[in-house]
Amino acid sequence: MPATVFAPEALFDFSVRVFRHFDVPDPDARTAATVLQSADLRGIDSHGVARLHSYFDMLRLGRINPKADVKIVRETASTATVDGDNGLGLVVGPKANAIAMDKALAAGSGWVSVRNSNHYGIAGWYVLEALKRDLIGWSMTNTTKLVTPLWGAERMLGTNPIAIAFPGEREPPIVIDMATCAVAYGKIEMARRAGSPIPLGWATDRNGAPTTDPNEMVEGGALLPLGSDRERGGHKGYGLALMVDVLTAVLSGANWGPFVPPFALRQEIPTRSVGKGIGHFFGALRIDAFIETAEFKRQIDEVVRTLRGTRPAPGTHGPLIPGDPEREAEAVRRKEGIPLIEPVVEELRDISRQSGIPFA
Amino acid sequence: MPATVFAPEALFDFSVRVFRHFDVPDPDARTAATVLQSADLRGIDSHGVARLHSYFDMLRLGRINPKADVKIVRETASTATVDGDNGLGLVVGPKANAIAMDKALAAGSGWVSVRNSNHYGIAGWYVLEALKRDLIGWSMTNTTKLVTPLWGAERMLGTNPIAIAFPGEREPPIVIDMATCAVAYGKIEMARRAGSPIPLGWATDRNGAPTTDPNEMVEGGALLPLGSDRERGGHKGYGLALMVDVLTAVLSGANWGPFVPPFALRQEIPTRSVGKGIGHFFGALRIDAFIETAEFKRQIDEVVRTLRGTRPAPGTHGPLIPGDPEREAEAVRRKEGIPLIEPVVEELRDISRQSGIPFA
Repeated sequence: MPATVFAPEALFDFSVRVFRHFDVPDPDARTAATVLQSADLRGIDSHGVARLHSYFDMLRLGRINPKADVKIVRETASTATVDGDNGLGLVVGPKANAIAMDKALAAGSGWVSVRNSNHYGIAGWYVLEALKRDLIGWSMTNTTKLVTPLWGAERMLGTNPIAIAFPGEREPPIVIDMATCAVAYGKIEMARRAGSPIPLGWATDRNGAPTTDPNEMVEGGALLPLGSDRERGGHKGYGLALMVDVLTAVLSGANWGPFVPPFALRQEIPTRSVGKGIGHFFGALRIDAFIETAEFKRQIDEVVRTLRGTRPAPGTHGPLIPGDPEREAEAVRRKEGIPLIEPVVEELRDISRQSGIPFA
Repeated sequence: MPATVFAPEALFDFSVRVFRHFDVPDPDARTAATVLQSADLRGIDSHGVARLHSYFDMLRLGRINPKADVKIVRETASTATVDGDNGLGLVVGPKANAIAMDKALAAGSGWVSVRNSNHYGIAGWYVLEALKRDLIGWSMTNTTKLVTPLWGAERMLGTNPIAIAFPGEREPPIVIDMATCAVAYGKIEMARRAGSPIPLGWATDRNGAPTTDPNEMVEGGALLPLGSDRERGGHKGYGLALMVDVLTAVLSGANWGPFVPPFALRQEIPTRSVGKGIGHFFGALRIDAFIETAEFKRQIDEVVRTLRGTRPAPGTHGPLIPGDPEREAEAVRRKEGIPLIEPVVEELRDISRQSGIPFA
């Protein structure tokens, strides 16, 4: 699809003004725009300004609180439960993540479960923040239902991502950021638009049967968990998705499983509420609580070099290090700008029309 | 394969006497036998007394220290690094896990990375211990190389399991215990013995090409990570395996990746050492540090019932809850005994011959 390239700063400024339009306080608006920008820079196009119109809609309809009072409701030396006051996940998430990091600096580790929040952008942003402070960061969130448990025939769980990062000394960090389903929903949509079949193992139809037709997934089917089927470990991906749901939502008092509220207006609202908003879970470990930080980083460098030295499988250049593709995208996009496909540009123009905020 | 059934107590007593034979202190011998027995009871036959001969060999040759002095070498309020003094993993693991649990009770959470240990049995045993204290337990270990990173053509990582468990009130707990590869090595061996092909997505041959021939995996090939190939998320399983390696080994100062020492005598010893022994990682979270424990358990019950209520996929009875198969195996085996296949019985008889310890 043809794309128009935008300067990262221009998109950032536009995002800030959109959030400010709804009286999101300036520092919060800047944080939210930073998280969105990070997705666009790192090539995770689905989670950047492509989502701005959804945030815009939710703020416009008062379904997200622009001036959320993010509060600790329970805590110990190394843990906290945070209530996000129905704020933007892009604001609640960074504040809760900062609490986890502060606790780690004081007590060796910090773990924060968050309720009453909304979608928080890319899981990876949070663990990159931890890296800046020589912490091992963890980040998880639950999301609107899209995935069936193994042997199920309906959407019961979100794509529930897990991110974690480890710093190297001279080598770039290892940055793991993965949904716990076999494939992103965006890839199903792309195949649908292109009229192409999808591989077996991605999705089921509305009866829970494996399908290669993207329409069958979209129209009442479901994504499959990582591992896809019983033979290849689909019960493991399902287990991971469930783990994320419990840590983010059951532990904090948020909605879980099929009761997680929708991200966008067009999505169906669950008939039942079992908690408040959606949930996140952040963790931070102080490296020097376990081992000298310099020694840890030196070993991470060795791990990275060792894995890069793996004999390549046929038709490949050998294993990547988790985080390689995103870092490479960022290097290019910081220089050359962020390409946006026409439907996204049109959404930003629509925000501009509705709000009066000028858009290039 | 025909099997002989043994009373759990008889196998337990035999195991204790085998460990005592090498002067493992009595409480440690009993702990080690308990962890082994748990695998046999829960139907994870590969990790029970089927491994006793390997432990026997390693102790006999002095490659494992029977009287290990398990020590904290660094700590904060919520973390510790433990040196296992080259002890039995079945002894070092439980001690380190207890430290994580004690820290959690005092500081909300406890995280322990362990070096200089050996194979620790099933990951799930440790998180079941945490459940007894109303803690959310985590357990990970690295293991001898068997798995190729996605796009690699050689064994570089272990099967690196992750376990975590969550208690319910009236419903049984959710117990996730999963290797981060697509399938257990034992299944490849079974197919090999049976002369059957294996599904695509389980393994590669020695050149890194996908294979359906179990012999090709065994003879210099590798297991594939969870997700199997790029299309179905093999990079995610690889990321998880790497995460486990870093938390268990880089963080503690143990050997990682291809340098993890072998479990059994017949396995090749790595040419290089990058740390001490193998590594584990244990975590414990106090539930009431986040939310009332009763409320958490009530919600877990709801989660379990909701997932059991999922519409079933064709040809199935619907989703299981992680931990169901193992709990069902345990209920049967506690009553009816533990079935051992003839090669395992023969190994136990061989231990008996070598040690003079009577075996039924």
